[in-house]
Amino acid sequence: MFKFEGANILSVNQFDRESIEYIFRIADTMQPYAHRQKQTRVLDGAILGNLFFEASTRTRVSFGTSFNLLGGHVRETAGAGTSALSKGESLFDTARVLSSYSDVIAMRHPDIGSVAEFATGSRVPVINGGDGANEHPTQALLDLYTIKKEQQAHGASIDGMHIAMVGDLKHGRTVHSLSKLLCLHKNIKFTFIAPKELAMPTDIVDKIVSAGHECVISEQLEGHLDADIVYQTRIQQERFPTEAEANLYRGRFRLNQAIYTQHCKSNTIIMHPLPRDSRADANELDNDLNLNPNLAIFRQADNGVLVRMALFALTLGVQDVVSKYETPVHWYSNKGNTVI
Amino acid sequence: MFKFEGANILSVNQFDRESIEYIFRIADTMQPYAHRQKQTRVLDGAILGNLFFEASTRTRVSFGTSFNLLGGHVRETAGAGTSALSKGESLFDTARVLSSYSDVIAMRHPDIGSVAEFATGSRVPVINGGDGANEHPTQALLDLYTIKKEQQAHGASIDGMHIAMVGDLKHGRTVHSLSKLLCLHKNIKFTFIAPKELAMPTDIVDKIVSAGHECVISEQLEGHLDADIVYQTRIQQERFPTEAEANLYRGRFRLNQAIYTQHCKSNTIIMHPLPRDSRADANELDNDLNLNPNLAIFRQADNGVLVRMALFALTLGVQDVVSKYETPVHWYSNKGNTVI
Amino acid sequence: MFKFEGANILSVNQFDRESIEYIFRIADTMQPYAHRQKQTRVLDGAILGNLFFEASTRTRVSFGTSFNLLGGHVRETAGAGTSALSKGESLFDTARVLSSYSDVIAMRHPDIGSVAEFATGSRVPVINGGDGANEHPTQALLDLYTIKKEQQAHGASIDGMHIAMVGDLKHGRTVHSLSKLLCLHKNIKFTFIAPKELAMPTDIVDKIVSAGHECVISEQLEGHLDADIVYQTRIQQERFPTEAEANLYRGRFRLNQAIYTQHCKSNTIIMHPLPRDSRADANELDNDLNLNPNLAIFRQADNGVLVRMALFALTLGVQDVVSKYETPVHWYSNKGNTVI
Repeated sequence: MFKFEGANILSVNQFDRESIEYIFRIADTMQPYAHRQKQTRVLDGAILGNLFFEASTRTRVSFGTSFNLLGGHVRETAGAGTSALSKGESLFDTARVLSSYSDVIAMRHPDIGSVAEFATGSRVPVINGGDGANEHPTQALLDLYTIKKEQQAHGASIDGMHIAMVGDLKHGRTVHSLSKLLCLHKNIKFTFIAPKELAMPTDIVDKIVSAGHECVISEQLEGHLDADIVYQTRIQQERFPTEAEANLYRGRFRLNQAIYTQHCKSNTIIMHPLPRDSRADANELDNDLNLNPNLAIFRQADNGVLVRMALFALTLGVQDVVSKYETPVHWYSNKGNTVI
Repeated sequence: MFKFEGANILSVNQFDRESIEYIFRIADTMQPYAHRQKQTRVLDGAILGNLFFEASTRTRVSFGTSFNLLGGHVRETAGAGTSALSKGESLFDTARVLSSYSDVIAMRHPDIGSVAEFATGSRVPVINGGDGANEHPTQALLDLYTIKKEQQAHGASIDGMHIAMVGDLKHGRTVHSLSKLLCLHKNIKFTFIAPKELAMPTDIVDKIVSAGHECVISEQLEGHLDADIVYQTRIQQERFPTEAEANLYRGRFRLNQAIYTQHCKSNTIIMHPLPRDSRADANELDNDLNLNPNLAIFRQADNGVLVRMALFALTLGVQDVVSKYETPVHWYSNKGNTVI
Repeated sequence: MFKFEGANILSVNQFDRESIEYIFRIADTMQPYAHRQKQTRVLDGAILGNLFFEASTRTRVSFGTSFNLLGGHVRETAGAGTSALSKGESLFDTARVLSSYSDVIAMRHPDIGSVAEFATGSRVPVINGGDGANEHPTQALLDLYTIKKEQQAHGASIDGMHIAMVGDLKHGRTVHSLSKLLCLHKNIKFTFIAPKELAMPTDIVDKIVSAGHECVISEQLEGHLDADIVYQTRIQQERFPTEAEANLYRGRFRLNQAIYTQHCKSNTIIMHPLPRDSRADANELDNDLNLNPNLAIFRQADNGVLVRMALFALTLGVQDVVSKYETPVHWYSNKGNTVI
């Protein structure tokens, strides 16, 4: 079992299955706080350093909100704000200084390996909020947690399930990390649907196969959608040399309600790491799916808060005393009742 | 009466006179908290999503401060920070996701109608902090609240008063919204002083006249300043095709203490939505008016906090229990004593 | 003795030696709170306006964290965010408005004198976080506080000590302000090591000499490092007409462990205002010094939090009641044990 208290959370590779299930059990306990049935001050006075050296509104706000929901303060840097780095300062020095200003750090940075390098200089635990094309472990964990909850709602589990991943499987760090986490489970069937040029990297396919899972590779959407989970992705335009090159693939694999009805199972769950492209010529997931109760894309965002709350509680060693510091909620909230 | 709890605040058109007076009564009760004679934690643990997709330091900070004054946390986005929107995400999706991170949202966005569109996807109440040239309802409410308080200080009321609006009446959404709110009252005399090209739009003039109010239109400042309220505005340079075109009008209607003494009543109140242009060739309100006790421009900013506190309290349904959660103030504050 | 409650902190020139020692006594009392052995809510509900009209991640976050550590809220502006100023608004007006949104303000601005000008319009105390090439009083105070603590650890004091300042002594406001503060003490020996073109300004040298201190000026590092404190600085590239001109001086005075061993005393303390340049051709302080226990550069950052906490407590008049509002810390923290 991973020892969470005081630890850095840098990569999905740090966790075995037992540790992941422990994170998820703690995440389950966070739901009444996130949904406003209850309130806690367990991290009252603690300070999160929310250091986003690359813009990402939703991930940044999700980390900050998760910390507020546990009662803590948030000090924030948004955008490429660190003038010091541009003056030639090392990440070690930046970490030494900035970590004196908080009790835990969530960090995003455009460079691969930068968060781990920063962590060597930090005096407090560091949670990786994305280091370029490398890792985004909280996204992978919230995806897996969503899969687990959606499967449970159907009386099923992760073991033995069938997931189809669709789109730009070459550039999406999300699908890479999620695949690694799924490998820790038993008897998964993976279907990877992508244009040949954007196929899942072979090292990940090899890992899956050598772990004894089934792996199907296709360039066609139809005939492969009868999965338990369809995980759709966006063409990662920013990773292509030119926009024109990205446009060759945009809109290639579009899913809408008609296709869903024809090709999916009646309870196939649809996921997406978001943002989805809403432009008419590109939308991977049509808006007409918004009324489909199996569209889980917004539940993913909700689950992100629960998983990040769990990681903060575990890292700061308060996972067992959250309920001890409850205070009443006395303002209007509809959150616990919203179906999304 | 408007049902505030759980509602969106998108436009001044949502409110009848009774609802506005109710907002103002609640705003009155906020004064001891804003002036630091008292302190409350009524929104302890609640989270404001302060989403400014267009820069506006003062409106953004005013919303955030108002929420802090009620005891809540603030998670913030400042500037055109939403990379997701640039990746083709719809406002509905953005709202679905970001609204899972807070209990209420204040939002500014450069596009007309964007805040209302966002609200359709939001799971929590949304308060419009300005959607381009369209609406800025909290500004209109704080202006009307200021007028009411200034009139009361002279033993007068809004009904029956005379207001002169001066400057760029074509582009200023402030004067448009304020005029609509004043129309809900009785027997107002409006004087609109503007260059012909920047005149008050005819639909608003028509609305005023058909509601039975008096309306005078002029291109001259002198002879029209003996009003109860002179509401001065800035030339909205950013709405002109070129700076040169804006400069044709800058400095056209300048008010200083000498003109005030000669043309205004002894208790004419001067207002301005701020910022006022302090450049010597353009200043609509000269700095020599700073010593004039009837200059109410900074009291407007103060009142903005009270009105925003009221809207948060009403939207979250705590307007009647604010005093129940009082805690002592034990640090230095001179706010309650400052005359501005 | 300076009267702190309600006062602005704009310049090191405001303080006599007694006032500085009082600030430092209060800073000492902040250590258990900053190191997480204790927690206080003495500023519960108070709001800091953290107005950074020029980017500076570490100074901004340090101010914000210091306020959070005393229990207060932080409302923030980062970067050249004030659209109002670009619309011709005066600093007086900006201050009048923004000061209605907080109980105390920390402000950085690129223009010399801007913070003092802002303070004339502010309704709440203003702390200067740096106004261009002019003043950065909290940096000077944290530097002096660090010197005092480091000297004390060796059984020595500031009086009678020897400090060598190295590098770009012309442009560094840090070394100017620190020199002024040291002048308030007795019998200091100053050694200024700089290229002739980047020498310490003569008015400061004159001030030192006329106050009866010793002053040695050199263009050579070697032979001048047997000081109690070596205060190294960065070439302030942004103050040179061209990068090429700055590069003439970069890397001129480099200190590493070998030079330290050969030329410094066994307990010479090394300081630096940070960021230090880590590029191999320019590093003023080599990374091999990181293991040297006399490298105090990261303790400076820690001390910055203590000094800023002290200034907030003093300005808001709560310096004697901090312990009265203690609450328990119940989350993981290693801060009090970290040796850096």
